[in-house]
Amino acid sequence: MPMSRFVVSLGGNALGKTAEEQQQLVAFVAEQIVTLIEEGHEVVLAHGNGPQVGMIQLAFTESKSTPDMPFPECGAMSQGYIGYHLQNAIGNELKKRGSLKSVATIVTQVIVDEHDPAFSNPTKPIGAFYSKEVADSIHKEHGFTMKEDSNRGYRRVVPSPMPIDVKEKMIIKSLLKDHHVVITVGGGGIPVVKNGNRLDGVAAVIDKDNASAKLAEIVDADELVILTAVDNVYLNFGTPQEKALDHITVDELQKYIDEGHFAEGSMLPKIKACMAFAKTGKTAVIGSLQNAKDAFMQKSGTIITQ
Amino acid sequence: MPMSRFVVSLGGNALGKTAEEQQQLVAFVAEQIVTLIEEGHEVVLAHGNGPQVGMIQLAFTESKSTPDMPFPECGAMSQGYIGYHLQNAIGNELKKRGSLKSVATIVTQVIVDEHDPAFSNPTKPIGAFYSKEVADSIHKEHGFTMKEDSNRGYRRVVPSPMPIDVKEKMIIKSLLKDHHVVITVGGGGIPVVKNGNRLDGVAAVIDKDNASAKLAEIVDADELVILTAVDNVYLNFGTPQEKALDHITVDELQKYIDEGHFAEGSMLPKIKACMAFAKTGKTAVIGSLQNAKDAFMQKSGTIITQ
Repeated sequence: MPMSRFVVSLGGNALGKTAEEQQQLVAFVAEQIVTLIEEGHEVVLAHGNGPQVGMIQLAFTESKSTPDMPFPECGAMSQGYIGYHLQNAIGNELKKRGSLKSVATIVTQVIVDEHDPAFSNPTKPIGAFYSKEVADSIHKEHGFTMKEDSNRGYRRVVPSPMPIDVKEKMIIKSLLKDHHVVITVGGGGIPVVKNGNRLDGVAAVIDKDNASAKLAEIVDADELVILTAVDNVYLNFGTPQEKALDHITVDELQKYIDEGHFAEGSMLPKIKACMAFAKTGKTAVIGSLQNAKDAFMQKSGTIITQ
Repeated sequence: MPMSRFVVSLGGNALGKTAEEQQQLVAFVAEQIVTLIEEGHEVVLAHGNGPQVGMIQLAFTESKSTPDMPFPECGAMSQGYIGYHLQNAIGNELKKRGSLKSVATIVTQVIVDEHDPAFSNPTKPIGAFYSKEVADSIHKEHGFTMKEDSNRGYRRVVPSPMPIDVKEKMIIKSLLKDHHVVITVGGGGIPVVKNGNRLDGVAAVIDKDNASAKLAEIVDADELVILTAVDNVYLNFGTPQEKALDHITVDELQKYIDEGHFAEGSMLPKIKACMAFAKTGKTAVIGSLQNAKDAFMQKSGTIITQ
């Protein structure tokens, strides 16, 4: 396989719930990534932040002496927190194998359209669960949309708009040109909207797989690899008829989507992000973090092409 | 003045106590920085994080549902939080003035020596104040050094070692080569020590002015500008004999240091950082954020040369 440029998208759930857990888990991620680099490939690493940004927001909500922390700022904190561990672990693994490559975490703003229909239908729950009474008073005080979630109480919901562009794309391109390893669009990026000449942060969650697909398009990646907890995309998942998909085209996937095979908010967004990228003529893979090395080489996972 | 490379060091206290305050204050910082860029100069921006990292740590300490957050990780979060606001504000100001330059915040690890004498004498207070009883139990449970601070109670103290190197220096150099604006060594950098081939985070605070001087040396800056609350370094500060210094040499400053003119933990570390940089034959300036544009052009502030 000739030298290729990979965008690898890592789930926030793969990073544990505490700093200690995260630090242990990134060591395995680093091994997979550095093996790919050692084989001569370039890597841009994107990652989720669901549990981490939730934890950060919860800390500020529960703490009595600290001020309110808006959601985009919590996202920026999560980029620093996760990025530090990833760049440290990848840097350590590179050094161990005698590589002098550098790794950078770029604090990243991702531009969304303020007219995106998602803004009129917030769907993404964030932060703590509240009773109906408290939820009503939060709505009254802050104007937040509060919705019942999973029978566990009420949570704030924010929109999940599509990524249009990555503000720091020229930074990322400069670093790739010099063969550095780049960590970017953490948590899907800090969502910002255009406001005349300004970009302003908004309370929203950009799906990290959509952000990764946009990033892969921007950096002209050869392959987009979405790493998750399972080895493949399945038809009839969880039934006796379940069947793992190995090679599949965009058109075949569309047919299965229309038949309702894939779970909203779980496999479906990953599949859609891969389809968007595969439509540009490139290859997308959905595979497991556990078998990441094989997924990179298209020897494991579901391989999606035009 | 021909095109020069500036390292500008901004105090964490200049950034306010809440996200809203910070967002307002960075707009002024951005104006100063972008004026310098418009005049054809290059800028690398460093900043403090004292109040911000304290706030983040306090949120995790007070919150009941979130796990302990180690100090280096809190520092990484503060780099994301402050860096996002700075890069957003500088980016907005550049756009307003028609510039297409990009701005990047680099999550930055700064290497310190585990044998630095600072590790046997922790001096830097961080986080909340506690009663003697609680402080004793924290010491017993976590092994933290706790010291009485300003008659307000007991606080954890951590070492303040000297910066040896910036792990992400090749990243910074690549970005400068392509004329991007770089924000780095936030809060003095995330302190890491060498451990065989590994770099491991340690609970410590690197003085941000020392880190800025090291950074200025690494990127071969022409000028180091430390922005603070006052326009000048003063002799006999706060007395009827106080006298502002405008131009001064390293040797003259050493004489005044020996005479005890400058406050430990306030002006003294800034002066020492500037002296270290000026010894390389370059110019360092200590001036006020308010008059930053004049300080950059050496028309205001205390100008320190060899």
